Parts: sequence; C-alpha cells; structure tokens
Amino acid sequence: MKNTTAVYPGTFDPFTRGHEDLVRRAVDMFDRIIVAVAASAGKGPLFSLDERVDIIAEVLQEFADRIEVTPFTGLLADFAHRRGANVMVRGLRAVTDFEYEMQMASINRKLAPDLETVFFTPTEQYTFLSASVVREIARFGGDVSAFVHPTVIARLQRKF
Amino acid sequence: MKNTTAVYPGTFDPFTRGHEDLVRRAVDMFDRIIVAVAASAGKGPLFSLDERVDIIAEVLQEFADRIEVTPFTGLLADFAHRRGANVMVRGLRAVTDFEYEMQMASINRKLAPDLETVFFTPTEQYTFLSASVVREIARFGGDVSAFVHPTVIARLQRKF
Amino acid sequence: MKNTTAVYPGTFDPFTRGHEDLVRRAVDMFDRIIVAVAASAGKGPLFSLDERVDIIAEVLQEFADRIEVTPFTGLLADFAHRRGANVMVRGLRAVTDFEYEMQMASINRKLAPDLETVFFTPTEQYTFLSASVVREIARFGGDVSAFVHPTVIARLQRKF
Amino acid sequence: MKNTTAVYPGTFDPFTRGHEDLVRRAVDMFDRIIVAVAASAGKGPLFSLDERVDIIAEVLQEFADRIEVTPFTGLLADFAHRRGANVMVRGLRAVTDFEYEMQMASINRKLAPDLETVFFTPTEQYTFLSASVVREIARFGGDVSAFVHPTVIARLQRKF
Amino acid sequence: MKNTTAVYPGTFDPFTRGHEDLVRRAVDMFDRIIVAVAASAGKGPLFSLDERVDIIAEVLQEFADRIEVTPFTGLLADFAHRRGANVMVRGLRAVTDFEYEMQMASINRKLAPDLETVFFTPTEQYTFLSASVVREIARFGGDVSAFVHPTVIARLQRKF
Amino acid sequence: MKNTTAVYPGTFDPFTRGHEDLVRRAVDMFDRIIVAVAASAGKGPLFSLDERVDIIAEVLQEFADRIEVTPFTGLLADFAHRRGANVMVRGLRAVTDFEYEMQMASINRKLAPDLETVFFTPTEQYTFLSASVVREIARFGGDVSAFVHPTVIARLQRKF
Repeated sequence: MKNTTAVYPGTFDPFTRGHEDLVRRAVDMFDRIIVAVAASAGKGPLFSLDERVDIIAEVLQEFADRIEVTPFTGLLADFAHRRGANVMVRGLRAVTDFEYEMQMASINRKLAPDLETVFFTPTEQYTFLSASVVREIARFGGDVSAFVHPTVIARLQRKF
Repeated sequence: MKNTTAVYPGTFDPFTRGHEDLVRRAVDMFDRIIVAVAASAGKGPLFSLDERVDIIAEVLQEFADRIEVTPFTGLLADFAHRRGANVMVRGLRAVTDFEYEMQMASINRKLAPDLETVFFTPTEQYTFLSASVVREIARFGGDVSAFVHPTVIARLQRKF
Repeated sequence: MKNTTAVYPGTFDPFTRGHEDLVRRAVDMFDRIIVAVAASAGKGPLFSLDERVDIIAEVLQEFADRIEVTPFTGLLADFAHRRGANVMVRGLRAVTDFEYEMQMASINRKLAPDLETVFFTPTEQYTFLSASVVREIARFGGDVSAFVHPTVIARLQRKF
Repeated sequence: MKNTTAVYPGTFDPFTRGHEDLVRRAVDMFDRIIVAVAASAGKGPLFSLDERVDIIAEVLQEFADRIEVTPFTGLLADFAHRRGANVMVRGLRAVTDFEYEMQMASINRKLAPDLETVFFTPTEQYTFLSASVVREIARFGGDVSAFVHPTVIARLQRKF
Repeated sequence: MKNTTAVYPGTFDPFTRGHEDLVRRAVDMFDRIIVAVAASAGKGPLFSLDERVDIIAEVLQEFADRIEVTPFTGLLADFAHRRGANVMVRGLRAVTDFEYEMQMASINRKLAPDLETVFFTPTEQYTFLSASVVREIARFGGDVSAFVHPTVIARLQRKF
Repeated sequence: MKNTTAVYPGTFDPFTRGHEDLVRRAVDMFDRIIVAVAASAGKGPLFSLDERVDIIAEVLQEFADRIEVTPFTGLLADFAHRRGANVMVRGLRAVTDFEYEMQMASINRKLAPDLETVFFTPTEQYTFLSASVVREIARFGGDVSAFVHPTVIARLQRKF
C-alpha cells in the first residue's frame, strides 16, 4: 500500500464550500492531507492568517485525525519537502486557472521533482465560486450563506 | 492506508511518451492502475485494439504487478464500477482538452458518484505531443522516435 | 413597448435540460420565440428531424402561445429574415463554444445587420451538459434521466 | 408585450466606442436601459465618477427618454432589484472576459434569481478595444480619437 | 542582410480576404514567400487543389516575382526543407487556433530545427472569418463578397 | 533584400532563458533587433531599469553588432516609429497571453500602421516560465539557475 501525504495550499480568504468540497473528495484518496494556509497577497484580507487556520480546522474537524491545518510562508516546494508531502492537490475551475496552474505545476516539478501535482474539479454548483467574489459580497453585506460553511458566517457576523 | 484502484482510459493510438510519462507519475500514488484501451473512434486506426493492448503491456512491463492493460467498450463509468476502480486518471495538456475533460468529469460524477477524476499534467517536453500528430507523421514516413517508445517504433516498421 | 421575435436555432439531438433551461429564461424577455431545428450534421442522429420538432413542442407545450417549433434548412440569417426575427438567442457554456459563437455572431451581423445575437448562460448544473454526451450515454444504455425531460426518456425507450 | 428594464453596469473610464456600440444594439431590445456607473477600482481614474456619468449622458443624449445614466455603489444585484431591472446586459469580447462574466452571472443568479444576464458581442472593429488601453494611450498623449466619442476627446483635452 | 524564404501553408478552400491580408503583411518582411496549398482533409472541397492554386496565383499576381504558389503533399517540415525555407508563416485568430498552432510549431521544431514558425494576426475585420464558414455560406447561395476576392466570386458563379 | 528592424519590448525583470531563447530565434530573421526595456509597472522591481539594460546587454553580447538594448518610456508605437522599426516581436506562451497580445497588436496597428507585430513561441522547456515566477522564487531564496542566465544569478547573489 502507498503512503501518500498531500499538501493542499491556498489563501482560503475565506474557505469556501468549493474548497471544502475538494477536501472531501481528496480525503479518501490520500493517507494524510496538510491544508497549508498562505498569508494573503492582497492588502486587506477578510480574515487574518490565524483566523483562517482556525476556521478551516473547525470546518474540517471531523477529519482531524487525517487532516492538519497549518500556516506556511516561503516556497511551497520547500514546505512540501520539509513536511514529507509527495502530492500537491489543486482545484481547477476555469481556463484562466488552468494556465496558471500548469505554470506552477511545471515550476514546482523543477524545484521539487518528487512532488507530483494532481488536480480535482469541483461539483458544478461550485464551478463559478471564488473566494474573491465571496469577499466582495460579504463586504457589501450581501448574503453569502450559499457559498461558505456556517462557521464562516458566524465569524463574519462577529466582524461586521 | 487507502486502497486505491485508478483507471486510465484512452484510445492510445499510439501510446506516446506523454502517456507513458503520466503512468510513471501515477504509479506511486495508487495501489493499482488499469489502463483501459478504447476502440478507436476514427476510421483507420494506426494499430488495432489488440495491437495497442500488446504495445502498452510491453512498454509498461516493469510495472506488471501493479498495472493491468485491458480493452474496454461501453460506458467508462460502468467499466470502472465493475472493476472496483475509485479513481479516474486523465492527462491535461491544453485549454481545449480542459473543457472536454471538465465536461466528462462532471458527467461521470453524475453516472458514478464514487469515481473521482484527478488530472495530471505532462512534463513540458510532452505538452504539445498528441497521438493524432504522431499518427500523421508516421503515415507520411516521418521520424517519430522522439515521441514514442522503441516498442512502438519496431511495430511501425513492421507495418510500413 | 418593443416587439421582439427571437429565433433559437440548434440541432437539439436531443433537446436537453440545458436547452429547456435557456428557453425558460428567454421566454419572459421576448414577445415570441421560434425554436428553429436544423437537420443534424452528423451521420446517425439519435432522433429524426421530425421527431426532434415533436419532442421540443411537447416539452415546451405550456408556452405554445408564445413559442413556435419548426424545422429549417439553409442560412440562418435568411430564415430569421423571412420570419421577421430581430434577435438570435444562443447559449454559452464553454470557451470553445464562445469562439465559435463569436465567429457566427460576426458573420450573421454581416449577412443580416438587423438581427442581433444575444447570449444566455445556463444554470451551473447544466454547464457541462451537451447533446453529444447525452447521445453517447443513451447509445450505451446509460441513464440519462438527469439530463433530459421525461418526454425524451419515453421516446428513447421506444427506440431501444 | 414584455416590459423589460435592463441594467448595463461598468466603470466606463472612459466610455469607449465599444460601450456605445453595445448600447445602440441593446436599445431596441429593451424598454428601458439604466447605465450604472461604478466607482473605479483602480487608484487614479482618468475621469471622476461624476464626470463619467456626465460624459455618458452626453454621448447617449439622443436616447434620453429611454436610457438613464446613474452612479451606483454596493452590490449590483441589490441595485438592479431596487430599480426594478429584470435584465443585466454585459459585453463579451474575449475568453478572459468570458470566464469572469460566467462567474458573475452565476453569482448574480444566486443573489437575484429574477435578474437574467444576457451578453452582447461588439462589432469586430471594437473586439480588441478596452477602456484600460484607451486610458494608457491617453496618459501618454497618444491619439485616441478612433476609440472614443468626440465628447470624451474634448474632456481629455481640457484635462491635459 | 538576411535571406529569408517563408512558407505559408494551408488548405485555402477558399482563399479568403483574411489569408490575403496576411500575405500582404508578410510580403515586405521576407525575401520570398511560398504559398503551399495542401489537399483538403474534408470530403467535398469547394475547389479542387488545382483550382485553389490558380485562384491564389491570380489574387496575388501583383507579387508574382516574390511569391510562388504551389501544391504540396506529405510532411510540411520536409517540404520546407526541400525548398530551402527557413520561416513558416501562420495566422492566429482565436484561442482554439492558438493551441493547435503551438502544438504544430513545437512538433515542426523537433522535425526541422532550422525552420522557425512566426505568427501574424489579422486585421480585426477578418478576426472571425474562416474558410469553413465561407464554404458553408457559398453552398447555401449566400453572399460571400465581403469575405473573398472577386476572383473567388467569379469562380463560384461558374460553379453554381 | 529586405531591410528589417525589429523591436522586442518588455519589462524583463529579470531577463529569463525564455526571453533569451526568443532573441536567438529572431536574430537570424531580421537585420537588426532593438530590445526595448520598459520601466516596471509593479512597485518593487527585482532589478532597476539600468540594471536590466546592463544584464540583457551582457547576456546578448555575442550579438552586439546586430542587437541594441535600450530603455524606453511612453507609447511603444511612438518609440518604434522614432527608431525606424517596422516589426514588433512578441513571445506567445499561453492563452491568457494570447488575448492581451491580440489586443495590443490591434491597437498598435491603429496607432502605427507600418509596424507589423509577429509572434514567436518558446521551446517547450520555457513554455511555463515567466519573469514573475522567477522573481517570486528568487525572493524566497529558491534556486533559479534553470530559468535564467548565469549573469542574472551573479547579480542576484550580489543583491541578497
């Protein structure tokens, strides 16, 4: 039997139903998953890095024995190597995603030849869902309950 | 530990270095791989279905204990179900591929909810390689040795 | 108030839940819709042209006062002109669709300057649905009840 | 006869010949059009929000009885609902546009089920025209008279 | 000074205003251009290979000292090598084109390392023009005078 | 014989093996190439404009008689015109590139009708290489020696 550790990196600001859907699909394929939460590239994230790690751990608590949620900085290839991951998991929704992901998979293959990138596609209902859109709707006070877990809603309500 | 059986379907007319590269990437991620060879949709395939199964088995013989090569007809979702596969493996090279693959992954999810599709991307040197181009070059007597395994070359020479 | 007649052309082999969804979206925007059913370009259509016209009329019978279903041949621009249509309605699902549709909209604008093409997008659950996939599943005896109206299912059962 | 109010949202910094072309195509299809001008996301817009509203009203003054030009903030779905719009009008030029637009149409459908998004495509001569390119050329003092209405040119000359 | 011979391959069934536009752009960049006309892949071409060679020669007769029009079969890389061409010229209109062209350029680079592929883009008015659409309109008796040279029109009239 | 001067514009922060590959392909096709280095749009470039000009001149010194490296500001069409260039050279890697490049080629054709844009595609090994990715890896102290010339490496080491 294989021993596979997959890293699933992202900013997850916020963690959407689409991210959650991907983890639920991947959890039976790998022995262990590390959700690696990156600092936000944009100026004003909706949630701080710590809040995001907390939220994801709460949403995925039923898998706590197999899924670890942790912040990371630096190069993903280095992080994966340090943590013994041999698989990188990414979601693919759109053509624009696709080209960026092809580029990153190619670069990571050069930086970390033992780390293989595999892609999952979301259920249709999450095909057009993105964290940036959820963020924008939340900032205008719109209803995002169809897009995120109740844990995220509760945190948002404390914020606004 | 997981028990994962992946099906890798295709026409493989011929099996290229790109297909081979994908199998070599996937072989350590899953417990077992079934290479499922479909009848060719086009009129004049380069190799018959039997020849293609033979060629692939020969190219992948070092993995004979973990990889099975077999012809299939009918719906892939049914085939995967009968064979106990829980993963479908596909290669992604280009945007045009991508949309067709998204469509098939979505349809297969409806037909076989337990079968999860995951995508691999090829090494750059195989990004622009396709079986149809190899077929065309071979028919005009061009040199395809950079694109296929020596086993395929030997079979082609017997043909022409 | 405007007086708008929209033509919605297609092969509709078969008419899917995606096509039906589009018509339901368009029916309140235009005064009248003509569903124009083209002869199939492929060799073996699932349903004959007459059968397809019948099926669509049956599926859309609740709108019979505002929607006409009719076969057509020749240039769409000519057909639209003869029938007094000033709008062409098309569905957009994928990037590959998109470029073909841009091309056709551009050509039709040259052939029929008074005919304006507008595009609708399907509900997510139909984003990856296409008549060709339904056709293929039906031919292998797979279950297509999630993709088409019961009228189509009934007709298929009489066929196979 | 239908009673259709369409909202056409955008930043319009500046309003180009492509935007104008779209409005001229849409004006005969809907009873009323609201051009909804958003605050610019970027730091230094070419024209202030007020200037943009003025310019567009001037360019479209021949349709003043059927077209309203107004600033808006907040969620577009809310704005459309408050104003009784049942159609959202968007232009589609390129594949990159297309995916973003599919995403927004999908999200808006969830936020406002009664608001239907339809897409128009520009005349070929405006296919590659974008407000950001016009802005860049204008800033370097290049000639933008092929890309915008004389009203915009006049305003630019007062600026530089 | 460079000595450049460019080959411009295609089926050209028929030679459109878009093809002509590309040649007019390329003629001043290279010392010599060989328009290489391929046998049609489809069953029923509009014009025979000989007719197509004649038509193109007639349309481009003003450049007869620098442009040669000739049929070709077999591998393009071999043809280019035999004729001493060091440049391959291709037109790019759409994303779908683009991926196929990337693939061919990559394969040809492997088969003929001295042959460099360069791409031209058409004037906007020809962005959505394709030989297959012209062929379809011509077959239905539609007006193609905006899309092809009068020479092609004259030939079509003799045909129908 | 033609007299062709090509301008190859870019930010080149840093100049990658992909940029270098393109110049080596283009150098035999044109009489003269001007590498036009633009000020970086982003806030913190890896190298200053002067450094970038120096690096590129050093990397391409073997072609010093035919290639000039120079900074530029303002509109590219104006720059090309002032310098007597009749060709603009651009690299095409991905679909996302492609649409932006089509737009720029179209706009530049309007601003400078005598300047023809031609596109080159990179060797596969550089298909997924971009300056922004190199920049990011370099900032995290990752190994970029597969992606840039030793000259760039030496400069980076002096920096960090």
